[in-house]
Amino acid sequence: MSKVLICGIDGYLGWTLALHLSSRGHEVIGLDNFERRKNVEEVGSWSATPISDINERLKSAKSRHGYEISFAEGSTLDYGFLSKVMGKSHPDVVVHLAEQPSAPFSMADREHAFYTQQNNVLGTLNLLFAMKEYAPKSHLVKLGTMGEYGTPNIAIPEGFFEVEYRGRKDWMPFPRQPGSFYHLTKVHDSANVMFACKVWGLSSTDIMQGVVYGTRTDDIDDDSLLTRFDFDEAFGTAINRYCAQAVIGYPLTPYGSGRQKRAFIALVDSMQCLTLAVENPPKQGEYRVFNQIDEVYGVYELAEQVKRAGRPLGLDVGIQALADPRFESQEHFYEVDHDNLRKLGFRPTHTLEDELDIMLRDLLRFKDRIDAKRDAIAPRTTWKDGKSKPGRRMV
Amino acid sequence: MSKVLICGIDGYLGWTLALHLSSRGHEVIGLDNFERRKNVEEVGSWSATPISDINERLKSAKSRHGYEISFAEGSTLDYGFLSKVMGKSHPDVVVHLAEQPSAPFSMADREHAFYTQQNNVLGTLNLLFAMKEYAPKSHLVKLGTMGEYGTPNIAIPEGFFEVEYRGRKDWMPFPRQPGSFYHLTKVHDSANVMFACKVWGLSSTDIMQGVVYGTRTDDIDDDSLLTRFDFDEAFGTAINRYCAQAVIGYPLTPYGSGRQKRAFIALVDSMQCLTLAVENPPKQGEYRVFNQIDEVYGVYELAEQVKRAGRPLGLDVGIQALADPRFESQEHFYEVDHDNLRKLGFRPTHTLEDELDIMLRDLLRFKDRIDAKRDAIAPRTTWKDGKSKPGRRMV
Repeated sequence: MSKVLICGIDGYLGWTLALHLSSRGHEVIGLDNFERRKNVEEVGSWSATPISDINERLKSAKSRHGYEISFAEGSTLDYGFLSKVMGKSHPDVVVHLAEQPSAPFSMADREHAFYTQQNNVLGTLNLLFAMKEYAPKSHLVKLGTMGEYGTPNIAIPEGFFEVEYRGRKDWMPFPRQPGSFYHLTKVHDSANVMFACKVWGLSSTDIMQGVVYGTRTDDIDDDSLLTRFDFDEAFGTAINRYCAQAVIGYPLTPYGSGRQKRAFIALVDSMQCLTLAVENPPKQGEYRVFNQIDEVYGVYELAEQVKRAGRPLGLDVGIQALADPRFESQEHFYEVDHDNLRKLGFRPTHTLEDELDIMLRDLLRFKDRIDAKRDAIAPRTTWKDGKSKPGRRMV
Repeated sequence: MSKVLICGIDGYLGWTLALHLSSRGHEVIGLDNFERRKNVEEVGSWSATPISDINERLKSAKSRHGYEISFAEGSTLDYGFLSKVMGKSHPDVVVHLAEQPSAPFSMADREHAFYTQQNNVLGTLNLLFAMKEYAPKSHLVKLGTMGEYGTPNIAIPEGFFEVEYRGRKDWMPFPRQPGSFYHLTKVHDSANVMFACKVWGLSSTDIMQGVVYGTRTDDIDDDSLLTRFDFDEAFGTAINRYCAQAVIGYPLTPYGSGRQKRAFIALVDSMQCLTLAVENPPKQGEYRVFNQIDEVYGVYELAEQVKRAGRPLGLDVGIQALADPRFESQEHFYEVDHDNLRKLGFRPTHTLEDELDIMLRDLLRFKDRIDAKRDAIAPRTTWKDGKSKPGRRMV
């Protein structure tokens, strides 16, 4: 069993993972500065699921499941704080989820771009130094995103590929083509992490994750243990926004052609993958990349799935495309390798169809909370303008 | 004629370029926060050439050549300051040289890595937003480095290449493999700049520059106009350190095998290239990459050249390799495309041999200044340890 430090334990994946790793007998320590809660509030929204504060969460995890999770409040930008946590705990594994994860939030204006790049790039840099100093043999599980790769016209390997060019060959990092200031931070982080592994012998699993969807895992057996579910334009993914729209009876709003393809994975399967990474560390000094995805859908196709899943629940909604606020390929090739996790034993357990039914049922219980923040769903941030504008109204 | 804003006008290239562009009739505005001077002082050194302060420089440029260069003191991290300068001047061209340029400085410890990534990545991000807001049609000439590419086993194109992979093709950014926290910032910057061009239609020339060497150009016809010349382990390049060592009669100290190859270009030719970029802007929205190099040498071979150039001047020095403090390939393929600047008319005018003679003669006049800081030449920063150590003594 390992001692696992989860940076960003109060987030969607962080909290779920803390419960899941605890259930497998790992010792979990968490840190967070609660900026995700503040940032979602700033964009005029909240979690559809009414999440408890961290103290109640920890108390409930203990009383219901006997999990002893410890916690420290602070930012990765505060190296003194990081050093203290790392120096006291000497974790075997560090799972880094303490990043600002919203592309639209990062594109809102200069302040948000600056905040995002500062928090993510410099926070990760601090974490690398803290590991080097206090836990050089620990394993960094770093959350990247499939968005690092963009949508090239060739297959996307897992991080590296053999290049043949003018009659010579080399094994090289696959070119990254990120699509927002947020996605850029993930690319910068990947490069910084890879370098730290090379020169200092740290080891890391860099996870290029698809869009994660879902509201629960087996551990979440009480509302006091719910993880967050964002549905606003900034922090809600397309699938979350569709589900929220379906629940409050508004048309689903794919952007642009709707033929943009994305890779997806259910929350429970994401937990399975992260656990495989945690429990199967790379060799010391190794930097490895996992593409963590299950299914691929176009964003219009996804809306149709949500619409279909809503029907048996009495949710009958239309689909109405909006002008794409982003700068992205509307029609493109998309083929993604994802063998590394399979080789470690990953077997997806939930399809999108299975999970949508569970999600919609869960969200129906919190319909009023979604309805209260309905204005936060429509896109207000455009990539071209780089500033927040009064939103086009939904319908 | 253009209005050119030079960020980092007080530096080695910045000051030389300010004079050169003025001589061609361009209107030059400069900004700087003088951190380069402070950082070199921090590592226990100074410029071998006794450089005047900015006010004397500007006064002398005016009285000797009639150049009217305006100046504002401040940092690219201060967006209010940047906005004021940009909003007042609306430049046609922005030349961005305001970065912390030393790999060893960035590798010294956490504080220096953090400082470097903060200054370079976030400073450049601010600059992009200031351009978008106040001068969206201006052309950003951004100094990158050949070090962004590392030393792959295939030819290095100018920024982009055609990839064939599993039977499909795409035109993609060439993979970057930077070798220090400083070099990483240049890669991060390149990605941020490319993105800004794509989504906002800014235009930029991203210059992957080889090692620049030389002490003067035609404009530097008086000591009051000298540009800086660093020879310490952090801010001095191999060629500068060799020249400084030759002048004070100490053995030249290549690192490791000495077979590491690097690309070089003389200061006067670098000025020619930057001027070509300034005077031949890309199309609006275009992001183009120039590899700005002339000759390629191994670092031991370079030491032999310096030794040879010193002989007629009575400088008879040995060569003594030191353990390589860096993490780099000791033996590698190195082939670099550099056609883009040639197509704009670039013709190198100075070979290494020509220039070494001029440099050594210049430096002999400042022998005492080099001797006074001789302890700053030997390497103290190792990539592996990531912290400054008492240096191995020279000899």
